[in-house]
Amino acid sequence: MRFFQQKVKVGIAGVTGYSGEELLRILIRHPHAEVTYVAAREDRHCKIQSIFPYLEGKIDLDCRVMDAEDAARACDLIFLALPHSASMQVAPVLLDRGKSVIDVSADYRLKNPAWYPQYYQFEHTDSARLSQAVYGLSEYRRKDLRGAKLVANPGCYPTASLLGLLPLLEAGIRWSAPCILDAKSGVTGAGRKASQSLLFSEIAESFKAYKVMGHQHEAEIRQGLAFGSAANSPEQPFVFIPHLLPINRGILATIYVTPTAPVAPERLREIYTQRYAKEPFVKVLPDGEFPELRNVNGTNQCHIGVGVRKDTGVVVIVSAIDNLQKGASGQAVQNMNLMYGFDETAGLR
Amino acid sequence: MRFFQQKVKVGIAGVTGYSGEELLRILIRHPHAEVTYVAAREDRHCKIQSIFPYLEGKIDLDCRVMDAEDAARACDLIFLALPHSASMQVAPVLLDRGKSVIDVSADYRLKNPAWYPQYYQFEHTDSARLSQAVYGLSEYRRKDLRGAKLVANPGCYPTASLLGLLPLLEAGIRWSAPCILDAKSGVTGAGRKASQSLLFSEIAESFKAYKVMGHQHEAEIRQGLAFGSAANSPEQPFVFIPHLLPINRGILATIYVTPTAPVAPERLREIYTQRYAKEPFVKVLPDGEFPELRNVNGTNQCHIGVGVRKDTGVVVIVSAIDNLQKGASGQAVQNMNLMYGFDETAGLR
Amino acid sequence: MRFFQQKVKVGIAGVTGYSGEELLRILIRHPHAEVTYVAAREDRHCKIQSIFPYLEGKIDLDCRVMDAEDAARACDLIFLALPHSASMQVAPVLLDRGKSVIDVSADYRLKNPAWYPQYYQFEHTDSARLSQAVYGLSEYRRKDLRGAKLVANPGCYPTASLLGLLPLLEAGIRWSAPCILDAKSGVTGAGRKASQSLLFSEIAESFKAYKVMGHQHEAEIRQGLAFGSAANSPEQPFVFIPHLLPINRGILATIYVTPTAPVAPERLREIYTQRYAKEPFVKVLPDGEFPELRNVNGTNQCHIGVGVRKDTGVVVIVSAIDNLQKGASGQAVQNMNLMYGFDETAGLR
Amino acid sequence: MRFFQQKVKVGIAGVTGYSGEELLRILIRHPHAEVTYVAAREDRHCKIQSIFPYLEGKIDLDCRVMDAEDAARACDLIFLALPHSASMQVAPVLLDRGKSVIDVSADYRLKNPAWYPQYYQFEHTDSARLSQAVYGLSEYRRKDLRGAKLVANPGCYPTASLLGLLPLLEAGIRWSAPCILDAKSGVTGAGRKASQSLLFSEIAESFKAYKVMGHQHEAEIRQGLAFGSAANSPEQPFVFIPHLLPINRGILATIYVTPTAPVAPERLREIYTQRYAKEPFVKVLPDGEFPELRNVNGTNQCHIGVGVRKDTGVVVIVSAIDNLQKGASGQAVQNMNLMYGFDETAGLR
Repeated sequence: MRFFQQKVKVGIAGVTGYSGEELLRILIRHPHAEVTYVAAREDRHCKIQSIFPYLEGKIDLDCRVMDAEDAARACDLIFLALPHSASMQVAPVLLDRGKSVIDVSADYRLKNPAWYPQYYQFEHTDSARLSQAVYGLSEYRRKDLRGAKLVANPGCYPTASLLGLLPLLEAGIRWSAPCILDAKSGVTGAGRKASQSLLFSEIAESFKAYKVMGHQHEAEIRQGLAFGSAANSPEQPFVFIPHLLPINRGILATIYVTPTAPVAPERLREIYTQRYAKEPFVKVLPDGEFPELRNVNGTNQCHIGVGVRKDTGVVVIVSAIDNLQKGASGQAVQNMNLMYGFDETAGLR
Repeated sequence: MRFFQQKVKVGIAGVTGYSGEELLRILIRHPHAEVTYVAAREDRHCKIQSIFPYLEGKIDLDCRVMDAEDAARACDLIFLALPHSASMQVAPVLLDRGKSVIDVSADYRLKNPAWYPQYYQFEHTDSARLSQAVYGLSEYRRKDLRGAKLVANPGCYPTASLLGLLPLLEAGIRWSAPCILDAKSGVTGAGRKASQSLLFSEIAESFKAYKVMGHQHEAEIRQGLAFGSAANSPEQPFVFIPHLLPINRGILATIYVTPTAPVAPERLREIYTQRYAKEPFVKVLPDGEFPELRNVNGTNQCHIGVGVRKDTGVVVIVSAIDNLQKGASGQAVQNMNLMYGFDETAGLR
Repeated sequence: MRFFQQKVKVGIAGVTGYSGEELLRILIRHPHAEVTYVAAREDRHCKIQSIFPYLEGKIDLDCRVMDAEDAARACDLIFLALPHSASMQVAPVLLDRGKSVIDVSADYRLKNPAWYPQYYQFEHTDSARLSQAVYGLSEYRRKDLRGAKLVANPGCYPTASLLGLLPLLEAGIRWSAPCILDAKSGVTGAGRKASQSLLFSEIAESFKAYKVMGHQHEAEIRQGLAFGSAANSPEQPFVFIPHLLPINRGILATIYVTPTAPVAPERLREIYTQRYAKEPFVKVLPDGEFPELRNVNGTNQCHIGVGVRKDTGVVVIVSAIDNLQKGASGQAVQNMNLMYGFDETAGLR
Repeated sequence: MRFFQQKVKVGIAGVTGYSGEELLRILIRHPHAEVTYVAAREDRHCKIQSIFPYLEGKIDLDCRVMDAEDAARACDLIFLALPHSASMQVAPVLLDRGKSVIDVSADYRLKNPAWYPQYYQFEHTDSARLSQAVYGLSEYRRKDLRGAKLVANPGCYPTASLLGLLPLLEAGIRWSAPCILDAKSGVTGAGRKASQSLLFSEIAESFKAYKVMGHQHEAEIRQGLAFGSAANSPEQPFVFIPHLLPINRGILATIYVTPTAPVAPERLREIYTQRYAKEPFVKVLPDGEFPELRNVNGTNQCHIGVGVRKDTGVVVIVSAIDNLQKGASGQAVQNMNLMYGFDETAGLR
């Protein structure tokens, strides 16, 4: 563990969004962090504890209009929980002042700048830094995260998908028919924006697939799957379709792989249990058991169930996380712990 | 239209279950039916309108303990909305008395008697009649339903799956990698039984896959897919996994097919729009649109959206129904209409 | 019943709001109405069945931008399901063209023009017509509704409250301690507006009282209670507090009255059963039973349970309606039926 | 603070109920407690972490069939989260062995043994100890809790009601018209029992009042209100009616008091803010604000909003708690902290 006598002074930009709020909840009880700056674009200047009444008595801090210079003066590390394309305006200022940045948006996730106009409909204005940013899928990037200055925190769907699929690829299992990623998310995944399609009465007692013909997270999943493959190995095809659950939190991905060579159930189980045996935040469920969102919601855990279907040999992996914890703010704090050499679980139990 | 001067006298066994209750709601306003008998196993003898207060003023009928002889005396047609393995005790008595039966349970759905012990854990005691029962997937069995005496009403998952997949097979499209049927159902699909796993607090704000390694409806789907294939054509492999949605009603199945030869999007759309052009209860959504449960719940409609994924050529079909209507009681009444030669939509608009 | 050979041509302004949509659902299957005009403020010109896909095959009509002259040309009767203060701009044009109007907003509910700035924050621009408008609490205004040209359809909270309380007042029961109206409403009561406070994640798994210090419906309740009192009798004090339920539909009001003289339970029951004995849409529940929203939702029924608390003598009345049916669009159609002399229940069973 | 070198060894009987599970969640991270015994009546002998998968890695303990002697051997303090009438069988054995008991059921809450047959339908078999049991409404019984051996933990409804009403009584405010306690609770308040009325589909999208003519918690509220009154002062009348919310957690009570003498809004605010100024777990909201369940759920906080209605002078108090935390297990741990002289907030932040 690295020597670190004082607490890290941390700031949160976009604190009134769901990810920002969750970051604040976690960080105010983190043993090695002190929240010294919080900002939100739209909110009038006021106390953060008056916006979130349950924080009364736990923190006393003004909620400001985001200003990168102010943030740089007040903090060592700034979490950017901003809408896509906003982070790349702010991060350069912070990094130039020598500050560290964990970006919860997609702005630094993709290595290929050409993917931004294609998947996110904007030109990247800080593309030089894309190669420096560490993609913060904690369980697969520990070494790079240590001492990193700019971390691109993974998206919620990619986190659930990659934690579910990467062990297969690392074990050399391949497929030619496309792998199916059928993912279902709670509503907070869409952010706290006043949109008619997110109204209670549009969602309660309903369910739907969305962006069926293509979702921006595919680029990130595609890039992430390359982590698990040997260099120059061919891309493994997949189809990803998200669905909207009438619940607040949680992502559950049901993953179907038709392997090119049969995989024995015992071998499959061994692959997963070995890969995640020492991981504090990934739990492979016992044989025959599969995850439920209520067992991961409110925690930074990823639960994974695996099995092989008898007649078809299809490998089924079910992966579940809390989209605001392991899928966003929890993993962001896990990454902070890894950057600074703290106990990886600090503030996350 | 067949000549039919008087109303059909109908009975409902298992009227206090969700399917039975829905049958009653539909039948009391059906122009060609008169409900003359309702029964429930457990309930004490009382008026049905005191069990369901919203029926007050619409019907006045005793709810009895099920007795096949009584039912035969009171009705021409009896709907059996009983637990699996109970219908096969009752149906023979009714049929022997010359009555017609629409069985909403699984007891007469499978042609192969050996599948009952394998998938439902009971030996069939009336297996001779399995071959006579008409499998009531209305849109695919109209001729056989006309004048039928025993109809096996399809399960909710098979209805959504088969309406989604059969047009592909009929059009000669084949696949070798298993087709994926990722299905999600509301809670009423599990019936009104006092089980801890169905308690509000176990389900609200949660989500899970269940019976991941095998669900009894697979036998029915497998059998149903043969409807769409030429005789002696090889079975098309599939994997079916159900999930439990924290809502009351509705099934949405996301279906992924990797065809052996590429299918153009226009061709796919043509296959579905042509197949269902004249169907009163199946609607193929416009290009780029996919179903939402709130648009089918409370109706006997099946909504289907189709598309081809660009990079992989995977055909995606999303099929949505109300599990208690098109997935059970609505389709049962549609089948009654077909049996008796009534307008197919009578009582279902 | 009045002679009426042809169907009434009806229009709906504000058809994309929850009340407007519900009106459309009811009116397209109404035996004496033909929907000839639908309009919505914001929506681009398109077919109404493409906005509400479940209407496909049931109606084929353009959804227009509201224009009073167009509406007057196309219809005999126009339902105004517009935001407050919009109806009073449109109604005069329609009425001057000799058309009939049922206004679902609050614009013509209050007799006292001074209450509009006080309770609704706008000056009334058509105050001369306030006295002509018939307050459409159907069960208490039948005579006035017959042949009426302008009907002010009651609010959802006032409907539940007044149907619950008026029998007591009519029976001469009085109170000096304020009567408590503790009301709970589903989310559609707030309309389909993109507001952050109505997002799924702000409401699901939560509950709150709102407008605790005063809600605009109090004026309407106060005015309505006068219906039940003899002329010049003193106002009976009350406190009304609304709460927001995490469900789509339904209002349940729990009403507490401390009568100045004791009321025997049998007498209380007699008051309610007699008052509502012949009402098709109000049901007084049996002794000891109280309403549940699931028994009234989707219907135009009001369910009422009554009882007297032993030790305190407090009279408890629980009144439940579907806020979009009896609390808005259902009652509006009931009023149409009364205006034109149709069977009061036409289109509402 | 009392000298206490070692951790208290604690046991939980009824650990698979909602209160028991919540106790376990809290106690495994409590700095001064070590969970050494957990028991459940029905469950087969197995590991507690296999029943609650999210506990994996946090605890390793057998879940046993409850045996008072075993519990006494393993623990210093036993929490009884058992059904009513079961605790009074077990508590005497534990107390006779010198152990401490916090009973989460109603068995030791009422001082008057005659109230048990009247309100709970059983004769009390350990009535001698009723007078010794300390009623654990923490904020009002600190002195008595210090060193107590038997604590009767308050019910969820009484906790919300009494925290809301007692400051008024302590301040000498009286009423003659009955105070109205209109309370709404999430479903976990009913416990984890497989009852048809608690099924998801019976509760979702619905709402109802229940036990309208009388609920067993009235006895406890009546007794509790006496805490705030001077000796021999007359009982203040009230009516309590509970309602069932379609959510998992939380109780919100809307309380209406018509005081015999007018209370100024500033005076009312002063009464509450002064009474609870130093309380770590009770927060009086700013003027004009009222509680929402989502701000208290998951915490041991009680949020209270107060106001005076202008025209009627009715005092309105809205009190909100998480029924499983401050309404049960959280308060039980708060009481443990007080019994042993720990920091009152230990384990509860």
